[in-house]
Amino acid sequence: MITLTSDFGTPYPAAMKGVVLQRTDAKLVDVGHDFPRHDVRTAAFWLRETLPYFPPATHLVVVDPGVGTDRDALVVRAGEHTLVGPDNGVLLPVARRLAGEDDFEPRDDIESGNGLETFLIDEQRLEPVEPTTGTAPVVPAGSADRGPASTTFHGRDVFAPAAAAVHEGDPDRLESLAVLEPTDDFVDLALPEATVDEDGCAVGEVLVVDDFGNVITNVPGSYLESRDQIIANDDRLPVGDTFADVPTGDRLATVGSHGYVELDVNQGRGDEAFDLEVGDRVDLESAPATD
Amino acid sequence: MITLTSDFGTPYPAAMKGVVLQRTDAKLVDVGHDFPRHDVRTAAFWLRETLPYFPPATHLVVVDPGVGTDRDALVVRAGEHTLVGPDNGVLLPVARRLAGEDDFEPRDDIESGNGLETFLIDEQRLEPVEPTTGTAPVVPAGSADRGPASTTFHGRDVFAPAAAAVHEGDPDRLESLAVLEPTDDFVDLALPEATVDEDGCAVGEVLVVDDFGNVITNVPGSYLESRDQIIANDDRLPVGDTFADVPTGDRLATVGSHGYVELDVNQGRGDEAFDLEVGDRVDLESAPATD
Amino acid sequence: MITLTSDFGTPYPAAMKGVVLQRTDAKLVDVGHDFPRHDVRTAAFWLRETLPYFPPATHLVVVDPGVGTDRDALVVRAGEHTLVGPDNGVLLPVARRLAGEDDFEPRDDIESGNGLETFLIDEQRLEPVEPTTGTAPVVPAGSADRGPASTTFHGRDVFAPAAAAVHEGDPDRLESLAVLEPTDDFVDLALPEATVDEDGCAVGEVLVVDDFGNVITNVPGSYLESRDQIIANDDRLPVGDTFADVPTGDRLATVGSHGYVELDVNQGRGDEAFDLEVGDRVDLESAPATD
Repeated sequence: MITLTSDFGTPYPAAMKGVVLQRTDAKLVDVGHDFPRHDVRTAAFWLRETLPYFPPATHLVVVDPGVGTDRDALVVRAGEHTLVGPDNGVLLPVARRLAGEDDFEPRDDIESGNGLETFLIDEQRLEPVEPTTGTAPVVPAGSADRGPASTTFHGRDVFAPAAAAVHEGDPDRLESLAVLEPTDDFVDLALPEATVDEDGCAVGEVLVVDDFGNVITNVPGSYLESRDQIIANDDRLPVGDTFADVPTGDRLATVGSHGYVELDVNQGRGDEAFDLEVGDRVDLESAPATD
Repeated sequence: MITLTSDFGTPYPAAMKGVVLQRTDAKLVDVGHDFPRHDVRTAAFWLRETLPYFPPATHLVVVDPGVGTDRDALVVRAGEHTLVGPDNGVLLPVARRLAGEDDFEPRDDIESGNGLETFLIDEQRLEPVEPTTGTAPVVPAGSADRGPASTTFHGRDVFAPAAAAVHEGDPDRLESLAVLEPTDDFVDLALPEATVDEDGCAVGEVLVVDDFGNVITNVPGSYLESRDQIIANDDRLPVGDTFADVPTGDRLATVGSHGYVELDVNQGRGDEAFDLEVGDRVDLESAPATD
Repeated sequence: MITLTSDFGTPYPAAMKGVVLQRTDAKLVDVGHDFPRHDVRTAAFWLRETLPYFPPATHLVVVDPGVGTDRDALVVRAGEHTLVGPDNGVLLPVARRLAGEDDFEPRDDIESGNGLETFLIDEQRLEPVEPTTGTAPVVPAGSADRGPASTTFHGRDVFAPAAAAVHEGDPDRLESLAVLEPTDDFVDLALPEATVDEDGCAVGEVLVVDDFGNVITNVPGSYLESRDQIIANDDRLPVGDTFADVPTGDRLATVGSHGYVELDVNQGRGDEAFDLEVGDRVDLESAPATD
């Protein structure tokens, strides 16, 4: 099984799928292709929250604002899963989750044997991408030392063939693939952590806003335990077990399905009601009794 | 085969697919995940018009504004198909269609033997959803009597595992599945019917607006037979066999692919031209000859 | 394998998939269903740039502003691929690419033996589309001489069953299928070509704008060779190998993954920065040295 994740919209993912299916008969499953463009952190969050629910698979990820530059192409083996994508950090949060390492680990702890292995893709050794029949478009080669890939569509020309090669290979012996070379030099990325002080004040930020408009913060859901109300950025809010604990259109704080505090509106958009977007600071504090 | 329908956008459907694929190798087919949010009736319409074209399958449906409340989780066997989703009525119009019951039937007619069977999902008996490797996020259990599901993502934690269990079971003996218990107590939903009086006046409403902007009413298409023009909400319109029977940008009434009267614009948006949205009243009457 | 392309949005593609899956167990792959509505030329461009990367397959294409009129339904065998769609030209640019014919060929050159074969679909001989169980909606037959298809949804009623029939047949002997009859009478379509004069001035137009906002012109990428800057519609621009050759938010000209000159913004929208849309004229000329 190969999953596909990108910020490509339509129809670039289909070109990637064609290339993959030229080389393997794997089942393909879309994680999504309308992630916010060029937003590595948001994609990293959603991958971390989504891929662990899949059975062991190869995961092709292309959110790649640095396409065509000298950023490397990376493969990460994490537990029984294998991740393929640009070396910009997007693969690392989910890789640690898949390997059972929840906390940020300095990169020198990542080595063979503890569940995480990292490889560079040698683009020159990839079998070049070509149409099955007919004439290829004339695309410019990136540069002499990087093989025949285009400079602007490595999803099709680098990551899709690499994912197919990895999928066809032995997941336990990725080092035997000619297109991979082990590395411990890669770009890491950690999602920001919230702080909770002894007075019960939490300082966090908005990690992502989901398609419903739910504002997902990085404050652990445990913050809401045994609270009926909180103050979020100076607004008093009820704490609910689920959206429908408040009337339609009302605001609430709840613990989302990822385990974080969310600021939501029942059947409405929390981002609009709270005027919050990704990266905005969120202060939570205990609500004093009102009577 | 398992089809998937939701109002989830991206990437929550992928988490559902991962859970399903942990438990079964079924072919997955998306019906769509950008249905209007929290809109049970619109989803019910599209399911009724779409699922009957599939071969016998399990259909996973999550349009669920009551997630996390005490609404039940339902399985309906209808003809050779099996439907899995929240007990909010969304499954019933398509279930009746699949069972060959076109008209609204009072619920005490729904019993084993006439093509429709209904079951409650016992959430406590579902195998809990867990990541395949690594560490699960810490999600709050709903409540002691409902098992380990999160309170806000039953698509992942309840309906996906239930759909996998149903798909792996014997569709003719669903009652043998430990996670299901027969019930005749469920929320029903009927789409509104139009009335046509003896003077040829039809009073209906807008059932849905499709992605082209075509305004699909609940007036049966037979209303347009042997009419060349009609009056729709006081506007005179030509009746066409298809969009291109009028010039590009012009309005017309036609019979849509679902068999209802549609108010359309050739290569344009009927909803904007007619200023109509879901639920708006539509009055149709015969157009007097103009000369 | 059957790929699917349309301008249908949600959920009409699912009805097509259901019909196909009633008749064949083929792997289904979406090219996309949110192509610009009624825009035959844009779909033709994306098909030409995408389908050649697939292994030999049947490609179901429905961008069909003339649905329900007397336009024909077409099958084109091109190399090892087979295309199914409306006779409005949408299939021809990719068909020529798949057959290795890059330039526009007058249609009397298209005959059996040179890699392209064209067939009309005999709609009366298609097995009628019906729900698997239950009751069909009452849809109006188009007209007596065209079989039982609806007038507004030939994707479901004509092209899906035709694609299934073609996929189940022998791709090298399509003429043996009862539903096909050879023809050399069809609507052709050629994408416009740019002109480059001896002074190094190129006159082209915007072919498409992709989902990133990149403005893809029809000027061959070779125009940018050995140029560091160009004048595009009176604006001086740097020529880059890739987006990130200029700072985030800056404009550039580059060669896209299709081999054409693109006018782009690094991590931004070129269409907005250049105020260009599909069909707009683009003049490129050499940039005089600035010092």
